[in-house]
Amino acid sequence: MLPKFIYLFDLVGTAAFAASGAVAGVRKKMDLYGITFLGVVTAVGGGTLRDIVVGRIPPFIFRDYNYLIISILISLMTFYFHRLIERRFKFLLIMDALGLGIFTVIGTSIGMEYNIGMIGSVFLGVMTGTFGGMIRDVLQQEVPLVLQREIYASACIVGGFFYILAHKMGLSETFSVTLAVIVVFSIRLISIFKNWNLPKPKV
Amino acid sequence: MLPKFIYLFDLVGTAAFAASGAVAGVRKKMDLYGITFLGVVTAVGGGTLRDIVVGRIPPFIFRDYNYLIISILISLMTFYFHRLIERRFKFLLIMDALGLGIFTVIGTSIGMEYNIGMIGSVFLGVMTGTFGGMIRDVLQQEVPLVLQREIYASACIVGGFFYILAHKMGLSETFSVTLAVIVVFSIRLISIFKNWNLPKPKV
Amino acid sequence: MLPKFIYLFDLVGTAAFAASGAVAGVRKKMDLYGITFLGVVTAVGGGTLRDIVVGRIPPFIFRDYNYLIISILISLMTFYFHRLIERRFKFLLIMDALGLGIFTVIGTSIGMEYNIGMIGSVFLGVMTGTFGGMIRDVLQQEVPLVLQREIYASACIVGGFFYILAHKMGLSETFSVTLAVIVVFSIRLISIFKNWNLPKPKV
Repeated sequence: MLPKFIYLFDLVGTAAFAASGAVAGVRKKMDLYGITFLGVVTAVGGGTLRDIVVGRIPPFIFRDYNYLIISILISLMTFYFHRLIERRFKFLLIMDALGLGIFTVIGTSIGMEYNIGMIGSVFLGVMTGTFGGMIRDVLQQEVPLVLQREIYASACIVGGFFYILAHKMGLSETFSVTLAVIVVFSIRLISIFKNWNLPKPKV
Repeated sequence: MLPKFIYLFDLVGTAAFAASGAVAGVRKKMDLYGITFLGVVTAVGGGTLRDIVVGRIPPFIFRDYNYLIISILISLMTFYFHRLIERRFKFLLIMDALGLGIFTVIGTSIGMEYNIGMIGSVFLGVMTGTFGGMIRDVLQQEVPLVLQREIYASACIVGGFFYILAHKMGLSETFSVTLAVIVVFSIRLISIFKNWNLPKPKV
Repeated sequence: MLPKFIYLFDLVGTAAFAASGAVAGVRKKMDLYGITFLGVVTAVGGGTLRDIVVGRIPPFIFRDYNYLIISILISLMTFYFHRLIERRFKFLLIMDALGLGIFTVIGTSIGMEYNIGMIGSVFLGVMTGTFGGMIRDVLQQEVPLVLQREIYASACIVGGFFYILAHKMGLSETFSVTLAVIVVFSIRLISIFKNWNLPKPKV
């Protein structure tokens, strides 16, 4: 069981992901439905696929409507006030990094709960954190950003292992979760700040 | 339980969706397999994903082969006689709008049956009606049409709510279904005729 | 139950598919994570979707880590030694054709085990053999190769039917599997050698 305070941060992360999806839709000149859909799928797509993969049916979006409602509202807001939102670029990045940490921990913890092993659980964390953004990029006809540059999925991988290790060492759930979220959040933000990237192949 | 007459219309809608997928494959100069696959996935992709999401396993395409067989036959016909079919453009649009209405109602009704709530059920209707076409567009390397212009998914949303309301008001299933299909069908066709579009963001 | 020797070939096929995905990632100048992800998804994507469709939850990748581990290792090797691997182009084609045969038979046999009928089982074989490559192509922003040219999915279709027929005729499992793998493998390799293609629509 994840501690309750996670829930609030999870909704904040959902909102940040929805904004990133809706902003992408605005840039591609989609219409009101397209922008809303892109916001929603970016925010809840990763978690929905995760639930399908482990058999958590129906997926979380149908068990707690707050995720869908927040995604829709934020997407509609982005539709009307996208300039205001795009100007808060740094704030969005910080919220997105927070969401990435939360999504990773939730996914990893669900993997442990469903006994799919350590590698599988970390993979489920990566899925929760990154698959929504991948769908967003595919739908707007771009090679997914997460496959090309910046430190994004790799932050999830490190954070996922931290969570599992802390968990296995018998540390409290609150401590394990907080630690792992901070790890993902810090790696992501420091890598943006320092302009870190993963290596590219030598051609 | 949906009334029996729905089944016939469902197959007609499946055929229309398959034709739209296969025509797209012809335009992209795919080969015989590609065109057939695009036809099939456009016709049954939305319903298959819907079934996976609510845990109706195996999905409908494996429980009643008529859907797969019709999709394959129509795709093969389109491969050989695509000029004839493309010339019947208006007829196809009408059949497609009918299919959209039927798919929406079936998806929404399955959502109600699986108790995923009102918003979830409407979303399931939208999924059934639009996800096949989205996969078609992604596979042919285009930003999905449904995200960009015309009144398509929004017709499903309105129709889905009409169905649920009629259902909750205790109206007969036949009446609720017929009403909702007519709503989707009319909104879709009128919007094409009047050249209606959803708003786009101000840049 | 599939004979044990299949398992070894299955891992070899997994490695070949992973290499093809990772090479695609190298060509698109993805980063280390992108290349690894593309390798993994090409290798295990088809089988994972197959398992989700028939309700084999959790999917095979979480029940036997060898698939994930081999995919990751081969992708990493491809990242560092892609020139060496690309130079072994013919060897890769042969291993890929072997993998295609194995994947097809495994998918078809799972379809039979889950009683989804003959057409459904063949479709499941095609899915196992081709969907990973389709995801690879969508992620690298190309129209899936399998939809455009060469004899690929059609080899799976023929092989799938051979497997089912041999199975229904009461031939031993080892014989049925070997026959079907040889059919897919031979059709695929001969078609490359002879430069066979499926028909394209007349425009």
